[in-house]
Amino acid sequence: MKIGVIGGGQLGRMLALAGTPLGQQFAFLDPAPDACAQALGEHIRADYDDHEHLRRLADEVDVVTFEFESVPAETVAFLSQFVPVYPNAEALRIARDRWFEKSLFRELGIPTPAFADIQSQDSLDTAVKHIGLPAVLKTRTLGYDGKGQKVLRQPEDVRGAFAELGSVPCILEGFVPFTGEVSLIAVRARDGQTRFYPLVHNTHINGILSLSVASSAHPLQALAEDYVGRVLDKLEYVGVLAFEFFEVDGGLKANEIAPRVHNSGHWTIEGAECSQFENHLRAIAGLPLGSTARVGESAMLNLIGSVPPVEQVTAIADCHLHHYGKAFKAGRKVGHATLRCHDASTLRSRIAELQSLINTA
Amino acid sequence: MKIGVIGGGQLGRMLALAGTPLGQQFAFLDPAPDACAQALGEHIRADYDDHEHLRRLADEVDVVTFEFESVPAETVAFLSQFVPVYPNAEALRIARDRWFEKSLFRELGIPTPAFADIQSQDSLDTAVKHIGLPAVLKTRTLGYDGKGQKVLRQPEDVRGAFAELGSVPCILEGFVPFTGEVSLIAVRARDGQTRFYPLVHNTHINGILSLSVASSAHPLQALAEDYVGRVLDKLEYVGVLAFEFFEVDGGLKANEIAPRVHNSGHWTIEGAECSQFENHLRAIAGLPLGSTARVGESAMLNLIGSVPPVEQVTAIADCHLHHYGKAFKAGRKVGHATLRCHDASTLRSRIAELQSLINTA
Repeated sequence: MKIGVIGGGQLGRMLALAGTPLGQQFAFLDPAPDACAQALGEHIRADYDDHEHLRRLADEVDVVTFEFESVPAETVAFLSQFVPVYPNAEALRIARDRWFEKSLFRELGIPTPAFADIQSQDSLDTAVKHIGLPAVLKTRTLGYDGKGQKVLRQPEDVRGAFAELGSVPCILEGFVPFTGEVSLIAVRARDGQTRFYPLVHNTHINGILSLSVASSAHPLQALAEDYVGRVLDKLEYVGVLAFEFFEVDGGLKANEIAPRVHNSGHWTIEGAECSQFENHLRAIAGLPLGSTARVGESAMLNLIGSVPPVEQVTAIADCHLHHYGKAFKAGRKVGHATLRCHDASTLRSRIAELQSLINTA
Repeated sequence: MKIGVIGGGQLGRMLALAGTPLGQQFAFLDPAPDACAQALGEHIRADYDDHEHLRRLADEVDVVTFEFESVPAETVAFLSQFVPVYPNAEALRIARDRWFEKSLFRELGIPTPAFADIQSQDSLDTAVKHIGLPAVLKTRTLGYDGKGQKVLRQPEDVRGAFAELGSVPCILEGFVPFTGEVSLIAVRARDGQTRFYPLVHNTHINGILSLSVASSAHPLQALAEDYVGRVLDKLEYVGVLAFEFFEVDGGLKANEIAPRVHNSGHWTIEGAECSQFENHLRAIAGLPLGSTARVGESAMLNLIGSVPPVEQVTAIADCHLHHYGKAFKAGRKVGHATLRCHDASTLRSRIAELQSLINTA
């Protein structure tokens, strides 16, 4: 079976590393000449709206998926005429737009911070009156890793904020005094079977995920699975979905979803029986899902800007390096490392060991 | 770092799957147009004695290794002028030839079946008188998977046997009434550090490895490590070495070595902290070695001739499929599956489950 992937970055690369042992082949459509997934499959170098090359991809592969949610809707619509695309266009439409996303949460009874649609500075001023400050103004589409958003703390932060984010459709979200950020990685098969990985506790630095720790028997696991299951079934979703929550007062408030394999699930390569990458491929290929159970205690640390010297990373016990083969650049995710240990206290000391390497790199 | 591999079969393919996350790139020199490793790196399609292409490979990569031991000695000598080659030429010279191999075991005090160099039918007749029957006549070089050998049980089996194996240099080995076959996968770093995986119990069918089961605290582990360590140090070996033994009377007799990653070590991908493939690459790249400790109870079953339907293999719990992407052909290794379980009794039932699939495939 040949899998087409829209985008050829590290997520595509890790999909191919997981799918090659299943006998799958890969083609990546990505305009970047140095797309790092090309080491593991065919690279169709074309823009995402290039119908000629999209058609070529559709003709070559059995199923298409994508590694980022800002794929243009018309790209998915075009491809869907010729080949199955998973997750489906509706999932992408919702996940791509914070307004649709939050509206779906509300419709499904999933708690989420107060929010309002912002189409102008006037509507922002009105919304601030209802929601109060602090609040966060975010572009409805195209935001990631803390980009495309602005925290409004004081009334003077509100002035001109709509223009500051480019005068594009936005959403205002009430600020949530959360005690932690967790994500649930879920997978749904073509036949509707769903499986959930253990909740992951995430730490962000400057809006970019820094550390994910897989939890053991988290008290909110069942609640999170209930919420995520509602979204999966409503969207008739196929593949891996990541769902980010704020922990608030012992409960959960939905932050956002990503209709794809997710950075906070990278630990599953070593830390779960079957990784998020393999399970995504199993789902879209119509295969039975693999086990989402943990193997030991795991954590994942992102390598941002540069990868520390490989001989130092590999010298850390229980450490598994994932170098993405990308050019180093400040703020860019260029790799991650997973630590898998027998017990939580060893894990904590390994995290400290790796962090000291990252901070001095 | 770019790694050159002589040979582009499944071992090269699994090396690349292990090395890509370390940031390594791969080039495979293999004359076969359909070499299955080419999905994961550059394919230099050339014969193993093609100096022009060997030179190109040497110029492109930082280090060269190989995935089979019958690489011509002059290929290694030629490459070694331009680029480090691991394991070294001496290791290859010994491992390629059963006479040199057995002579080294004897020199190092490692028990091995009685053996004699056979250069003619006359020398075979003489050797049979000393060693007795049953015995096994094997070509000194190029034998694998039970090919290039003949069991001599009766005096009439001896007649014409030398010609039957092609009138090439052979070795006669006394038949050993073994109770089991085990292998030890070892790795030695550039700085001389060595690590050993747990002993593996192997079952062959028609001379081809069928099943490998990783053992837990095998009583002969320390003895095997002692024997293998002698060979590693004597050869100043760098990389993974597989050492096959017969279990005889509660002790070990050396059968043969393979100077490379080995089929009986495939279970380490899921079943050990760091796989034989990653450890081979760490060794030849001058990186620290990874842990050889077990993760759960593991077994590996070869898929020979064909891979059963992927949806059936992936439906087995605890099962990890490795499809080599090769054309199916009777007697050909086209994949393997690893079972990793929490306990030995679950492992036994999973093995039975997978075997029933393989036998009916």
